[in-house]
Amino acid sequence: MTYKSICSVKGVDAYGIKEGRFGLAVIRASGTAAGVFTENLVKAAPIELMRTQIKAGWLEVVIANSGCANAYTGKRGYADAVSMTGIAGTALGIDPKHVGVASTGVIGRYLDLPLIERQCKTVVPRLDHTPETEALAAQAIMTTDLFPKHALVKKETFAVAGIAKGSGMIAPNMGTMLAFIYTDAEIGPDPLSTALKQATRRTFNRVVVDGDMSTNDIALCTATGESGKVGAPEFSAALEECCRLLGRQIAADGEGATKLLEVTVKGARREDDAAKVARTVIESPLVKTAVYGEDPNWGRVIAAAGRAGVEFDPNAVSLWISDGEGEYPLVKSGEIIADLKRAKEAMHGKNVIFILDLAAGREEATSWGCDLTERYVKINGRYTT
Amino acid sequence: MTYKSICSVKGVDAYGIKEGRFGLAVIRASGTAAGVFTENLVKAAPIELMRTQIKAGWLEVVIANSGCANAYTGKRGYADAVSMTGIAGTALGIDPKHVGVASTGVIGRYLDLPLIERQCKTVVPRLDHTPETEALAAQAIMTTDLFPKHALVKKETFAVAGIAKGSGMIAPNMGTMLAFIYTDAEIGPDPLSTALKQATRRTFNRVVVDGDMSTNDIALCTATGESGKVGAPEFSAALEECCRLLGRQIAADGEGATKLLEVTVKGARREDDAAKVARTVIESPLVKTAVYGEDPNWGRVIAAAGRAGVEFDPNAVSLWISDGEGEYPLVKSGEIIADLKRAKEAMHGKNVIFILDLAAGREEATSWGCDLTERYVKINGRYTT
Repeated sequence: MTYKSICSVKGVDAYGIKEGRFGLAVIRASGTAAGVFTENLVKAAPIELMRTQIKAGWLEVVIANSGCANAYTGKRGYADAVSMTGIAGTALGIDPKHVGVASTGVIGRYLDLPLIERQCKTVVPRLDHTPETEALAAQAIMTTDLFPKHALVKKETFAVAGIAKGSGMIAPNMGTMLAFIYTDAEIGPDPLSTALKQATRRTFNRVVVDGDMSTNDIALCTATGESGKVGAPEFSAALEECCRLLGRQIAADGEGATKLLEVTVKGARREDDAAKVARTVIESPLVKTAVYGEDPNWGRVIAAAGRAGVEFDPNAVSLWISDGEGEYPLVKSGEIIADLKRAKEAMHGKNVIFILDLAAGREEATSWGCDLTERYVKINGRYTT
Repeated sequence: MTYKSICSVKGVDAYGIKEGRFGLAVIRASGTAAGVFTENLVKAAPIELMRTQIKAGWLEVVIANSGCANAYTGKRGYADAVSMTGIAGTALGIDPKHVGVASTGVIGRYLDLPLIERQCKTVVPRLDHTPETEALAAQAIMTTDLFPKHALVKKETFAVAGIAKGSGMIAPNMGTMLAFIYTDAEIGPDPLSTALKQATRRTFNRVVVDGDMSTNDIALCTATGESGKVGAPEFSAALEECCRLLGRQIAADGEGATKLLEVTVKGARREDDAAKVARTVIESPLVKTAVYGEDPNWGRVIAAAGRAGVEFDPNAVSLWISDGEGEYPLVKSGEIIADLKRAKEAMHGKNVIFILDLAAGREEATSWGCDLTERYVKINGRYTT
């Protein structure tokens, strides 16, 4: 399979290589840049480095490896991350200060720098803007992902596109979210950063596979500017849409998942309230197992909402279930009207959507997750030894 | 099996009956009383009633049914809860205002009051303070529990004992925590309430089976006073110990659980910080699956701690694993020293304990939970239809 997402953005070249568990992707795109990073207190070395490096607001290239997270590796790990930017810089003849770096894989182990250097030498001469090279880059950063993630939002005058990897945490491996987003819109580093932060808050940060925030999560966005100026609101909307498309793919590819779970909470007093309730529902193991079992167990959704720490009147809420096509009411203004047979039918597909109206205000938010299956337990039950 | 816990407390008589899914327990004990209740916004009718009723600080009897939670049942549900106190009051010739009431079971359905009245008439004449009648009361309130929960803390001059049920949420059933605690110490309703709140905060509220707080959770404590006055600190310590013993049993009997998981966080700046970190670790699906798989995956513990929203230096932490006997160090002041083979051995038993030192202060807290197994997914995946 090939994809046309980041290769459709003017000024972006990519390539990747995967050797067993160890992959390396390089994406060259010169432009203003912004990044968002894991809020986990335990931050991998490349995250620590990039938090400083991104302040310059400019990237020439991104280099990302899979197989080793370079996390919990102390000062040596930090020096290794710096070396990795040097490897890419040397190979491409650019200042290492403008190299973006990211890692995903096992924690508590050191990078194999000679391997990365060798892989980089293979990758760099092959950089190109074709669907094939883009696909190789997206595959190179996969760990336990079952499929690569690509997204493209094409507007009249510009495009925003990205590749990503996700898939719940595996440790000492930790599955990590990496997202590399590109646009040919011309946009300064500050509005770019603002837009990326807002998009992340509304999309990636609302994707919950198992609630375990990784030490390595990173999203980088580079704007090559080759399509000229774009209004900030228009750009923000396109960027958010691109992040949403990637986030949904990450949720659908959660470890052991058989279904994408989407929860929209509306009628909230504040967007944050809506997001909090949506997240609590999407994280609930009882909701997740019910979705897996195609059990239209609305009581679990309302009970989870009730413990989210948000004020609302449980006797005024309404709840619908949807498969993305029709919407079936389960509770209307606190009255149970569930037709369980029909509701169960709405759960047979790959997408299960709950819409909860808190009847407390006008704000809303959506969260994405997946079902909880025996396979998740199996995947995560035995790893280290 | 019989037990000597609440029947060892002077002035307490109990009996219970279980007919299929529908059980009824009555515990007669006249004394000062206090209660703590679910913080879920969605509160069952008996919870709403008891929150008012307990303000009098005096209970004569507790009546609790299993099979129907009387939750999400509106005004009729509230009236039914009031009727239930009337049924017990009539059978025992006491004021319904001094009847404690609790329910557990399916939500969204109404109580079968004629059944409860009939069961009450069977139970009341058989009230007694024997291990056999106590066992019947504890069994009567079980839903998906695999074993009844009894605890006794015997001091020189007084005793504190309780029975409880737990076991994760099942919906539209919701497994619920009910705890009925008795002491023959003489203690006023206000210090009793203070002690119960503190004990609950430190024990029951730190038990996490699946993070889904029930609509029906309740703990009631009655002090018969028959053993005379006791100092508040001495009483508080005994009550907390009793609640801890019950809480551990509830955690060990989590749905599908094969192991009790205990996480102690020490070296925290504040007790709340320690509790927050302990809870985040105990809730982590990755930690829970690793415990199930006997995988000494310390990276997951530290990564979970890192996202608890508490400030500490990840490079200063120490981590031990224990089976309740020896303690094996995994990380010492940020240095990885894990002997994975030895650590794995420490996970073979029924109890897996992590001790995490944040090296940030002097406060500590312990949280209890259980492993996450395929059986949990199976139990909860198909219920309603």
